[in-house]
Amino acid sequence: MTAPLSRIITVFERSPDRGNGLARDMRVRWALEEVGQPYEVRLVSFGAMKEPTHRALHPFGQIPTYEEGGLVLFESGAIVFHIAEHHKGLLPDDPNARARAITWMFAAVNTIEPPIIDLQTIRFQERDQSWYEARLPMVHDRIRDRLGELSIRLGNADWLDGAFSAGDLMMVTVLLRLRASGLLDEYPNLAAYVARGEARPAYQRAFAAQLALFTAQSSGN
Amino acid sequence: MTAPLSRIITVFERSPDRGNGLARDMRVRWALEEVGQPYEVRLVSFGAMKEPTHRALHPFGQIPTYEEGGLVLFESGAIVFHIAEHHKGLLPDDPNARARAITWMFAAVNTIEPPIIDLQTIRFQERDQSWYEARLPMVHDRIRDRLGELSIRLGNADWLDGAFSAGDLMMVTVLLRLRASGLLDEYPNLAAYVARGEARPAYQRAFAAQLALFTAQSSGN
Repeated sequence: MTAPLSRIITVFERSPDRGNGLARDMRVRWALEEVGQPYEVRLVSFGAMKEPTHRALHPFGQIPTYEEGGLVLFESGAIVFHIAEHHKGLLPDDPNARARAITWMFAAVNTIEPPIIDLQTIRFQERDQSWYEARLPMVHDRIRDRLGELSIRLGNADWLDGAFSAGDLMMVTVLLRLRASGLLDEYPNLAAYVARGEARPAYQRAFAAQLALFTAQSSGN
Repeated sequence: MTAPLSRIITVFERSPDRGNGLARDMRVRWALEEVGQPYEVRLVSFGAMKEPTHRALHPFGQIPTYEEGGLVLFESGAIVFHIAEHHKGLLPDDPNARARAITWMFAAVNTIEPPIIDLQTIRFQERDQSWYEARLPMVHDRIRDRLGELSIRLGNADWLDGAFSAGDLMMVTVLLRLRASGLLDEYPNLAAYVARGEARPAYQRAFAAQLALFTAQSSGN
């Protein structure tokens, strides 16, 4: 018997994307795998996420949360940053390069992700509305504007600023949410960038862990 | 004659909100005022923002950017964090409290701001569309969902987690973008929270600086 690990993240009890790795716990799992730190997961149902017990950890009733000793964090970006700050492998040592990597973390969640969230939101909530088909191209174009700019900045580089960093980890997971739309394939260097992220052994371990959870549930029922 | 300051931020040449302080340079100005650090501004026109010279600093063709010696940053959240990390006054010393303050920075830009950005986007780009009036209440309700949750978490506290931090600075500036919509006033504790932020001397100095730029231009033309 080993003592319980002191690091717990919450994940969806039932994977909404059937183990495709698009939930935000994937960012945290990947970060922990990159730095070689173990973790435990606690499953949370859609109902329980909105209850006071979980909201005490996450005021917006979402996953993931992160518990480590007396510390409770939410927001995948903040959790990834916390991991990156305390373990080697996700942020460069050089202070300027480190600041630039953090800039890419914020760019991922504040510049690239919002139009992508909008696309997901309207798919779930507005598909039956009369305006859905007419409006969809406008939403796609807003995403294309950002992808075009990101594609130019990335150019032929492997990663956004030198070596792989937490900025790339966040950006790849944000871009992955676009794969089903086909928009990512319009920018071959971005599609290759995302594929490079997915090819990392740490990504693959994290992906397998969340998929195993879904597979076990599916075969067990 | 004094030597040029080594810290330069870019701001809109023409304030789109007529000096109301809603542009994202306000976040950086406020942070620098909180920690008592001087800065210079460089004005950028809407046209020049999309040109290669500015895009070399900011791949998405926006303001603010931040230059300090050989370091170039963009993304207001990343710039505020950089300032907070290097100067006392915006992040607590206690490691856990510091991590929680950073969590609120990410919550501001990744959970609260996206539906607010959506509202701004459709006001500018979809006001003439047939669906605008019918869709607007749905967008408002998405914002209300987040405000309701934030309001519950804040409760009667002055700030989101103990003392004022960079997390509050980011959250207040994000919420300020809602004032014209009237939505903020539906949550009196959030409206009071924002007012507390605005009442800080550092906020007032930052606000005056950006307003003076607009006023000087208006009276000069």
